[in-house]
Amino acid sequence: MRNLKKLLKKIPKTIELKGGKLFIIDQRLLPSRLKIIQLKNCDEAAVAIKKMKIRGAEAIGAAAAGGIFLTVRNYSGNSLMIMKKNIQQAVKKIKQTRPTAVNLFWAINQLLEKIKAKNVVNFKQEILRRYQDFLYSEVEDNLLIGEAGNRIIKNGARILTHCNAGSLSSIWFGTGLAPIFSAHLAGKKIKVLINETRPWLQGARLTAWEMWRAGIDHQVNIDSAAGYLMKQKEIDLVLVGADRIAANGDTANKIGTYTMAVLARENKIPFYVAADSSTIDFETTNSQKINIEERSSSEIIDDFRLRGKKISHRQVKAFNPVFDVTPAKYITRIITEHGVFKPNQLKLLKKKNN
Amino acid sequence: MRNLKKLLKKIPKTIELKGGKLFIIDQRLLPSRLKIIQLKNCDEAAVAIKKMKIRGAEAIGAAAAGGIFLTVRNYSGNSLMIMKKNIQQAVKKIKQTRPTAVNLFWAINQLLEKIKAKNVVNFKQEILRRYQDFLYSEVEDNLLIGEAGNRIIKNGARILTHCNAGSLSSIWFGTGLAPIFSAHLAGKKIKVLINETRPWLQGARLTAWEMWRAGIDHQVNIDSAAGYLMKQKEIDLVLVGADRIAANGDTANKIGTYTMAVLARENKIPFYVAADSSTIDFETTNSQKINIEERSSSEIIDDFRLRGKKISHRQVKAFNPVFDVTPAKYITRIITEHGVFKPNQLKLLKKKNN
Repeated sequence: MRNLKKLLKKIPKTIELKGGKLFIIDQRLLPSRLKIIQLKNCDEAAVAIKKMKIRGAEAIGAAAAGGIFLTVRNYSGNSLMIMKKNIQQAVKKIKQTRPTAVNLFWAINQLLEKIKAKNVVNFKQEILRRYQDFLYSEVEDNLLIGEAGNRIIKNGARILTHCNAGSLSSIWFGTGLAPIFSAHLAGKKIKVLINETRPWLQGARLTAWEMWRAGIDHQVNIDSAAGYLMKQKEIDLVLVGADRIAANGDTANKIGTYTMAVLARENKIPFYVAADSSTIDFETTNSQKINIEERSSSEIIDDFRLRGKKISHRQVKAFNPVFDVTPAKYITRIITEHGVFKPNQLKLLKKKNN
Repeated sequence: MRNLKKLLKKIPKTIELKGGKLFIIDQRLLPSRLKIIQLKNCDEAAVAIKKMKIRGAEAIGAAAAGGIFLTVRNYSGNSLMIMKKNIQQAVKKIKQTRPTAVNLFWAINQLLEKIKAKNVVNFKQEILRRYQDFLYSEVEDNLLIGEAGNRIIKNGARILTHCNAGSLSSIWFGTGLAPIFSAHLAGKKIKVLINETRPWLQGARLTAWEMWRAGIDHQVNIDSAAGYLMKQKEIDLVLVGADRIAANGDTANKIGTYTMAVLARENKIPFYVAADSSTIDFETTNSQKINIEERSSSEIIDDFRLRGKKISHRQVKAFNPVFDVTPAKYITRIITEHGVFKPNQLKLLKKKNN
């Protein structure tokens, strides 16, 4: 516990409810600046998700639910019907922000399903209670993911990561990176090798920042050097998060994850996915059914400068898919708050969740 | 021939000897600006190579030999002994610039071996003649590589490339990309999918520029989206260049090439290397013996800005290997000016070169 408090001083919560107000870290300013901003209403929450001030599966879910919470909190009338209409509009707006992350839909559901309140006051109380519970229990899950994952990390392990499934992608403590924090807090010496993760460099910007703040040995590499590192036997295991896991274990995660999985198998390196079980979408039987978000060409070309200069000619078009799918056959184990599973054992979890 | 002249108007020679003066395109300014600069002496040639104003295996070789040519041309005395000492120093300096590209050593050798001139004037004449021949015959080889490679490119082919083995990496017309120019000039409709190629983005900056200038359909992607493209069946073949090919077919090329080869095999997509046979180093029996250059962390971290901001925290270290080695087993064919070979058939070429 003392160690956790120390870590919390170094890495604050990504999203936090404090005296009824909702705050997030604006991740677009990291690592240059750690700035916490307030979200005042559902529109601000939707913009924060859309513009990636907040990103990462669990954090998106928490911000989405936060948007609903704020809609309810901000309603000053006393008609339950009007409030419910407002909620419907808010849900519609929030759902349009990012199509791939299943946690977003799940988190909203956690807040809204089967509410029995018969008036506005009770409804507001119930939503506040549920949102507080939600934020609390997600962090608890993350600590459990960490504990489960810690068991597969040996002292001295060199761990390759992709994107950021760390504390900043979650409410706190991370999902994909939770095992790294747990191993570190347990006193293990580990080294984290970080794919910079183009185009938006969540690895170089965010994971490196988290490792630095936590005092964990780390090193950044370009994404396409990961294969070289594996072939040179510089990596003992690969650990990534997930944006959506299909019932058969196929996993959608940041673009490039599939490549890491293929390289890991080729080099006989275990490949782990760590995620909250809410990331598993039992409705989606396999990856064929996962909708892959494409974002604009300008995120690859225009947002960058190499020594102050544009990185391509002015008419260029870039293809910018945000995620890819790693078929279950490449995944050694999936680490969740309920323990460690083979991809084809996920159905055991379905029972637990029900 | 008319088509070639048209192409030359769109894409000038990377390195050119004109009236005894040596000119190069300063590639660090592309694609923003096409600027041709003069190299006046060996020091300037060494700096141009070291600072990557000129890069790519064949172009480095030509600039290295250019440095020796300039040393000879600039010598104003009449002592053959002193001139040879100057040459020795120049060779030493040039060889230290980039350790992996074998063409550099080979090109210098082309210029200097078995010169029989008995006085400075004759020596100068001989070097000028050899350097002119060298530049001419390299381009001729590139056209032959293109012709050989064109035979394996079908109309409608979608070709993935990594880094830039195009005209800018060579004296003109390219090595790795020569088959693309030949296919285009032969009237085939092709689409080139370009890995941006971190850290220095030779794909986004240079290959995209060449395709644009030549009027070839193209699209840029981040390096880690190549796996997704292959899995989605968006790619018919992979075509890359080489910095050094060992006698057994193992190929050193830009970092990330190994990853592309592994992904291609996993997705049953043919993987081709196109290179001048001078890139084959028969002294190097296999890849274990290839020295992989590492460059500074700052090329990954400090040279970039994402929306004007630094891409990692201020104490971060990045690992920056410039090349990796693709074992021969992943390579479908190696395309050279002498034709198309299986990697284990390279010994046939040894005989041709002798």
